[in-house]
Amino acid sequence: MPELRKDPIIGRWVIISTERGKRPMITESLARPDGDGVCPFCPGNEDLTPPEILAYRGGGAANGPGWRVRVVPNKFPALRVEGELDKNGEGLYDKMNGVGAHEVIIETPRHDLQLADLDPAQIAEVLAACVSRMQDLKKDIRLKYLMVFKNQGVRAGATLEHSHSQIIATPIVPKAINEEMTGARQYFDYKERCVFCDIVKQELDDRRRLVAENGAFISIVPFAARFPFETWILPRTHRASFEDTPQPDLAALAAILKETLVRTARSVNDPPYNFVVHTAPCDKPLAEYYHWHIEIMPRITRVAGFERGTGFYINPTPPEEAARFMKDLQL
Amino acid sequence: MPELRKDPIIGRWVIISTERGKRPMITESLARPDGDGVCPFCPGNEDLTPPEILAYRGGGAANGPGWRVRVVPNKFPALRVEGELDKNGEGLYDKMNGVGAHEVIIETPRHDLQLADLDPAQIAEVLAACVSRMQDLKKDIRLKYLMVFKNQGVRAGATLEHSHSQIIATPIVPKAINEEMTGARQYFDYKERCVFCDIVKQELDDRRRLVAENGAFISIVPFAARFPFETWILPRTHRASFEDTPQPDLAALAAILKETLVRTARSVNDPPYNFVVHTAPCDKPLAEYYHWHIEIMPRITRVAGFERGTGFYINPTPPEEAARFMKDLQL
Repeated sequence: MPELRKDPIIGRWVIISTERGKRPMITESLARPDGDGVCPFCPGNEDLTPPEILAYRGGGAANGPGWRVRVVPNKFPALRVEGELDKNGEGLYDKMNGVGAHEVIIETPRHDLQLADLDPAQIAEVLAACVSRMQDLKKDIRLKYLMVFKNQGVRAGATLEHSHSQIIATPIVPKAINEEMTGARQYFDYKERCVFCDIVKQELDDRRRLVAENGAFISIVPFAARFPFETWILPRTHRASFEDTPQPDLAALAAILKETLVRTARSVNDPPYNFVVHTAPCDKPLAEYYHWHIEIMPRITRVAGFERGTGFYINPTPPEEAARFMKDLQL
Repeated sequence: MPELRKDPIIGRWVIISTERGKRPMITESLARPDGDGVCPFCPGNEDLTPPEILAYRGGGAANGPGWRVRVVPNKFPALRVEGELDKNGEGLYDKMNGVGAHEVIIETPRHDLQLADLDPAQIAEVLAACVSRMQDLKKDIRLKYLMVFKNQGVRAGATLEHSHSQIIATPIVPKAINEEMTGARQYFDYKERCVFCDIVKQELDDRRRLVAENGAFISIVPFAARFPFETWILPRTHRASFEDTPQPDLAALAAILKETLVRTARSVNDPPYNFVVHTAPCDKPLAEYYHWHIEIMPRITRVAGFERGTGFYINPTPPEEAARFMKDLQL
């Protein structure tokens, strides 16, 4: 059973998981995608994954070909669904069992396409699968947070080449989200406005950091971007939880996500990237001070020691220059 | 002039630095150490660095050979010494000029040795040079924090192969340090004890996570380690500021730092690593609730998307197993 342990100084929870050490490709020297040539995410190989939890299909039986999007449990889960939390102490330390869920969203049956290559309608189905799984996972009251994220490229932490994203459901709220909740609430207490709504308004007025926009979303290079060509996608209208996005808005989100990823790829030679959906904790779905968004982090520069150790980043590319470059590209 | 910008939600400051973009080796494809074969840190090439700020030498004139440890300004500084902070706003955003200092400590004249290879006496001189520079930089009241760190290996962010560490002095306190100060103060307010002193005591009693110890320091794998074979070095006696370490203790620190680095290298095939000295902010040198320490982070696993985006880490190696393995090695 994996274990969740809490840092006693800053309250950061860490998953201590022996099982993941068994993953075939955890070290760099071994990090060849699909090392043995058989991709467990390709149609026809459905028996190489655990049985599917959800699939959108034009035909065919469960756990066979014919799907467009397929959701399966992670074969090497960071957290386990079974068991009690069993919170307890060890001297001054705190720990609990690693109860949670870890699922993989296979975004397309095509091995040769990446997320940015897919039709907006296909991307909208990927997003709909995320939303559906999140709504289901929220019913488990042990789970406090649902993380949706994607690692694109080996250098960004992907262990399989076939395009996929992931959901990890945790019995604690990650530190970075707690910090956002606290900061956003302080702003709200002072201004009686959502800080993210104010950011959307200022960026639409200013336009120097705007990368793309449509009726429901904007895409910007954030004012204090940590990484060159980092972008955030925010809904124009206040909404705390990603999983409450109405169906028509998922189409608009798919369109702006695709455009942002394509502009990123064209700007900096198709870099590996990570994105993380930042959404409200399960028990605060309607927070008036929090606003869900997606943070897309290309891996262009190396994160050096002091950045890793202090959370203090150096970004060599001014956000206004990155945004202008991305926006001016002819697609 | 580089710019410091503050994230409006969580208060994270970022250096936006166009100058560092000019560094020759910022992207992976270019990251060949000492690309053109001339090492600016080797004796005889002193004219390839800015003039030295400090050197310990057995003979020879300033900026010539004969030194054992040499400190020079970073040729591509993240922050600049000249100018006013000029704090100001831009709508809801906050920024200031990137005033600060960025220095390089060349740890040895030998190009073929790494820090862990040096004699403890030589390492003690490196530490003494850090302390000396920190004491000097603290006189500048614009500077609020002094970060000492090391990137060992290209994959850990080093751009030059020749063994060196760095000091960055900033006009703000990095977010990670603010969090430690806040967490440690909360613990102190509740317990009337320093949380780090309690950790030292518990780890010495428990011994399962102890890697090395001497009269003045212990080295442990922390209970909630983020990374496999991560270690922390802590002074046994309470002290908030690294730069207040008395001279005899620097020898003991050099010994345990060397032993810990050697045990790390032998345990996991000489990995790239970062270490960061965590010390109290300049204006709280005697905090009774904070305790300086060094965090050593080997780069073995990749930091994937959700870890980067949420501060929520998966560590596949239980700290007790890592510590036992490191401690049992015959050196």
